Amino acid sequence: MTFGIDTKGVYPIAATPFHPDGVLDTASIDRMIDFYHEAGSTGITILGIMGEAPKLEPEESLAIVKQVVARSKIPVVVGVSAPGFAAMRRLARDAMDLGAGGVMIAPAPHLRTDDQITNYFNQAVEAVGTDVPWALQDYPLTLTVQMSVPVISRIMADHASCIMLKAEDWPGLEKLSALRKAQAEGRLRPFSILTANAGLFLDFEPERGSDGAMTGYAFPDMLVELDALHRKGERDAAHDLFDLHLPLIRYEQQPVVGLAVRKHVLMRRGIISSDTQRKPWPALSATAREEVDYLLSRIARKDPRAAI
Amino acid sequence: MTFGIDTKGVYPIAATPFHPDGVLDTASIDRMIDFYHEAGSTGITILGIMGEAPKLEPEESLAIVKQVVARSKIPVVVGVSAPGFAAMRRLARDAMDLGAGGVMIAPAPHLRTDDQITNYFNQAVEAVGTDVPWALQDYPLTLTVQMSVPVISRIMADHASCIMLKAEDWPGLEKLSALRKAQAEGRLRPFSILTANAGLFLDFEPERGSDGAMTGYAFPDMLVELDALHRKGERDAAHDLFDLHLPLIRYEQQPVVGLAVRKHVLMRRGIISSDTQRKPWPALSATAREEVDYLLSRIARKDPRAAI
Amino acid sequence: MTFGIDTKGVYPIAATPFHPDGVLDTASIDRMIDFYHEAGSTGITILGIMGEAPKLEPEESLAIVKQVVARSKIPVVVGVSAPGFAAMRRLARDAMDLGAGGVMIAPAPHLRTDDQITNYFNQAVEAVGTDVPWALQDYPLTLTVQMSVPVISRIMADHASCIMLKAEDWPGLEKLSALRKAQAEGRLRPFSILTANAGLFLDFEPERGSDGAMTGYAFPDMLVELDALHRKGERDAAHDLFDLHLPLIRYEQQPVVGLAVRKHVLMRRGIISSDTQRKPWPALSATAREEVDYLLSRIARKDPRAAI
Amino acid sequence: MTFGIDTKGVYPIAATPFHPDGVLDTASIDRMIDFYHEAGSTGITILGIMGEAPKLEPEESLAIVKQVVARSKIPVVVGVSAPGFAAMRRLARDAMDLGAGGVMIAPAPHLRTDDQITNYFNQAVEAVGTDVPWALQDYPLTLTVQMSVPVISRIMADHASCIMLKAEDWPGLEKLSALRKAQAEGRLRPFSILTANAGLFLDFEPERGSDGAMTGYAFPDMLVELDALHRKGERDAAHDLFDLHLPLIRYEQQPVVGLAVRKHVLMRRGIISSDTQRKPWPALSATAREEVDYLLSRIARKDPRAAI
Repeated sequence: MTFGIDTKGVYPIAATPFHPDGVLDTASIDRMIDFYHEAGSTGITILGIMGEAPKLEPEESLAIVKQVVARSKIPVVVGVSAPGFAAMRRLARDAMDLGAGGVMIAPAPHLRTDDQITNYFNQAVEAVGTDVPWALQDYPLTLTVQMSVPVISRIMADHASCIMLKAEDWPGLEKLSALRKAQAEGRLRPFSILTANAGLFLDFEPERGSDGAMTGYAFPDMLVELDALHRKGERDAAHDLFDLHLPLIRYEQQPVVGLAVRKHVLMRRGIISSDTQRKPWPALSATAREEVDYLLSRIARKDPRAAI
Repeated sequence: MTFGIDTKGVYPIAATPFHPDGVLDTASIDRMIDFYHEAGSTGITILGIMGEAPKLEPEESLAIVKQVVARSKIPVVVGVSAPGFAAMRRLARDAMDLGAGGVMIAPAPHLRTDDQITNYFNQAVEAVGTDVPWALQDYPLTLTVQMSVPVISRIMADHASCIMLKAEDWPGLEKLSALRKAQAEGRLRPFSILTANAGLFLDFEPERGSDGAMTGYAFPDMLVELDALHRKGERDAAHDLFDLHLPLIRYEQQPVVGLAVRKHVLMRRGIISSDTQRKPWPALSATAREEVDYLLSRIARKDPRAAI
Repeated sequence: MTFGIDTKGVYPIAATPFHPDGVLDTASIDRMIDFYHEAGSTGITILGIMGEAPKLEPEESLAIVKQVVARSKIPVVVGVSAPGFAAMRRLARDAMDLGAGGVMIAPAPHLRTDDQITNYFNQAVEAVGTDVPWALQDYPLTLTVQMSVPVISRIMADHASCIMLKAEDWPGLEKLSALRKAQAEGRLRPFSILTANAGLFLDFEPERGSDGAMTGYAFPDMLVELDALHRKGERDAAHDLFDLHLPLIRYEQQPVVGLAVRKHVLMRRGIISSDTQRKPWPALSATAREEVDYLLSRIARKDPRAAI
Repeated sequence: MTFGIDTKGVYPIAATPFHPDGVLDTASIDRMIDFYHEAGSTGITILGIMGEAPKLEPEESLAIVKQVVARSKIPVVVGVSAPGFAAMRRLARDAMDLGAGGVMIAPAPHLRTDDQITNYFNQAVEAVGTDVPWALQDYPLTLTVQMSVPVISRIMADHASCIMLKAEDWPGLEKLSALRKAQAEGRLRPFSILTANAGLFLDFEPERGSDGAMTGYAFPDMLVELDALHRKGERDAAHDLFDLHLPLIRYEQQPVVGLAVRKHVLMRRGIISSDTQRKPWPALSATAREEVDYLLSRIARKDPRAAI
């Protein structure tokens, strides 16, 4: 399946693995990509906020795109948000030339009014080119930009190349319903909606109309299973699985410390070799590690994937 | 027990009940206070953010203080945060004259530097009087003011009348540990810490050193039970109870819509007569109500309190 | 002239005079109102941000409205911005009952999207009543709310009772031109525009279409003269007068310290008895006072009003 | 003179000249550098916010550093602020290898508490290397980070390689006095202070203790003359010159549109060939151009430099 308006399923947000000395860990990248495949993902997103993108040098970003695209059998979406359009254009064009499925663009943090936001995406699309499929990231908690339903609708109307909304507003359930209602009534063209905000509402979002998840939870295999239960309409079973993992999902959703938790769990699961992050990031305290391990042990009572 | 540095247990944040026409519902206030008593609360907090304090006229605020203090057998803490110190002083003095146990003060939203924050509280304490016991509210998610451990330490050192920290930073676990460590090492004087942020980390906070909870979750009776399990060191049982309620706690923690959920559940539990809020607040959609009811039914499979 | 869509001229933003002990100085209020009359003002605005409104108790605010309205022969506009609509409604209705010409409403600081802003004013107008004429304050530098031309247009279209824009965006000249163009082309109904932001662009704003000034510069008599020069089309003379005062205008436009400068100059001019402010505000340092006095002495070389 | 703690005089913030098609205009760069020399500058700052640094690709930034350093006979300071430390380190090391005199670092926009800010600069200095002399940029109006006197003092105490403060807080005069007082009393080590915020207070800042100016006003030659008058203690003459230019300084200080004005004036003065900016930036309207030209003509009545 290509990266298009009918995209469904789970797109894990990839971490960027480093060796303890901070150098890119290419062996772990391969292992991680293979793991995402085996987990049943329908695509992969790299160089997002959780991928420590701003801490990479341009050559490193490109090397990661190259390696991931070469190995992946599913579409690769590349985060290209940048402080300026020159850098955004460069990374987007290079990524597409290397075989990426599309890109993801977030609004710049200073945007406030509806017009400022829509103008920004007009310029972004002009910069990357109208031929590049892209996902619109709606993440006010971190980005501080609030995009209303009318603004998202305008962006979608103006740019046929925008084929997906990464929905992570908070609260976000009513917004999801409003967008799907507008589409059902023909006021808004179709596009894919994958939800995120660390997966904190993945028990209800598919019922509200989402097509899947794009998030970095360290159990993408569980996300795929959850997605399948939702598709089959097995509400209780879906909630049982979600509720089992919610304590850890909630722990990972914490700002700043969340990524440390994710890398720790990915390492514990044998997917990446080290949970090293580039600065500036706090290390996980011994107490926090014990808490995460305790949460894992509780999940493992019912889900063997967590028995690590 | 008075409101002091050794305060422990659960202080529910009271909602402010209105009749459907927006008038104060005094009968519901009485019922709610009685319910908090029966639930085993050790104190009550009124006129907080969740109590719709900014939507009340000064006379109404005073009337609420009067009624609650007269009926309550446990300490009543009154939120007195205000745009100016004149109004803060007025409400604090009036509340204490009526018999309140103390007040709660949040930093004004424009504060940024450490000095600005500590100066603000110097002026606040001068305004309300050094004889008024108060709780310091640390809630950056909503208030946008970030108070570091050194800043909290300075405020505590400067003001003997500050007897409690309402801890709701996010992430907050390491901060809690750092404060308790400073106290254990004698670098910081003793004070009570009740945690909040809707209770999202009440499974770990007592292990990190908190003395209890000050939050508006619609099941304060469950919070009291959870607190007791923690005090008894029954870790697994505490987590089992917490995890059972986490899906609803998480749902109530949403900004803006959270209060609507709480009032809805309190109404469903028969504690208040109407879930009316004063504007500006969105009503709960029919879908959201169904979701909340579904979450309640899932909790009710193991906790009869939710069978409503 | 009433406070209406054809309002022109100068509306000084009144300071709130206090005695050195912080008590309201009613004699200075009378003297200040008389001074505004003699200066040729066409209206007066009270209880604005510069009037230290948040530092007043409700009874004090009302007492000020009563005194000013009773003494003034020109329309009095009352700032009624408040954290909640109950307090806003109360002050607005009381002020109108006492004979105020209208009210001024600023957006609440948390508003971001166009819809949030327009909804806010829908609720504000519902609260104060559709019969109360009001001025819309557009002051993003202090209020952090950015209102685009389409948003202002929507508010004006929705609320016939909004008869004035207090324009103090920064930069603001192109916005002024865009609004006047929309009116000239019939896409926007007529309303008065008085500009502010401390008067920092009063040399060009009338040429861009403004109707006058609503600001607290300590020389409202100079503002009236400047306004007259603009009306007569004497561009060079208007700029000469403006440029003469610009160093002090610029000094007064500073955040936080600006009000201290204004009260100091008003006191030096004999209009108020004391430059006391209520906390929290920094006092003017001796060096700053010397700087202000030096600026006054330089203006006084050409403008005798500054010879004090 | 090297870039050191005894640096004095004027460091113009260089614009980045583009051809109308957006390509770097290297001939204009040479002409601009020569002009800064002839104007009497003591140093040059490139790749600052006003230099459209975020709109450049990494290779372009490096090419500019190379060209400017090769041509300049005075120290060149390179802005290296970046979203991550990897990019910051890379540019800083490359710039120093090419012969730059030092770098300039601004705090990342998300920093709030004193500890967050000082930690950030600890990591920045670790990244660029303790052997690289740098200027600390204090510009809250644009960067939203507020650094108090104690924070600046801590940074200066911790990092001997920080040899300059670019002071552009607003209000900033009392801060300047407080820093100089701390140095005079031996509580703070010596460092150079150049002021900015577009030069809006260059009439008083030298009297408060600043060593000169680092700003992009389109008349650096006037800034040099102003600086000399201050050094000679000719207060009235300094203010006369400053006041003459203040209307244009104020016009250039506007956010967003300010850079368009500067490039326009630099083009009118024959220093750069085109006033083209890279997106996203608004063009100067015809009315704004006329206003700038009118301001120039008024200055030109007394200062022939403005007769263009």
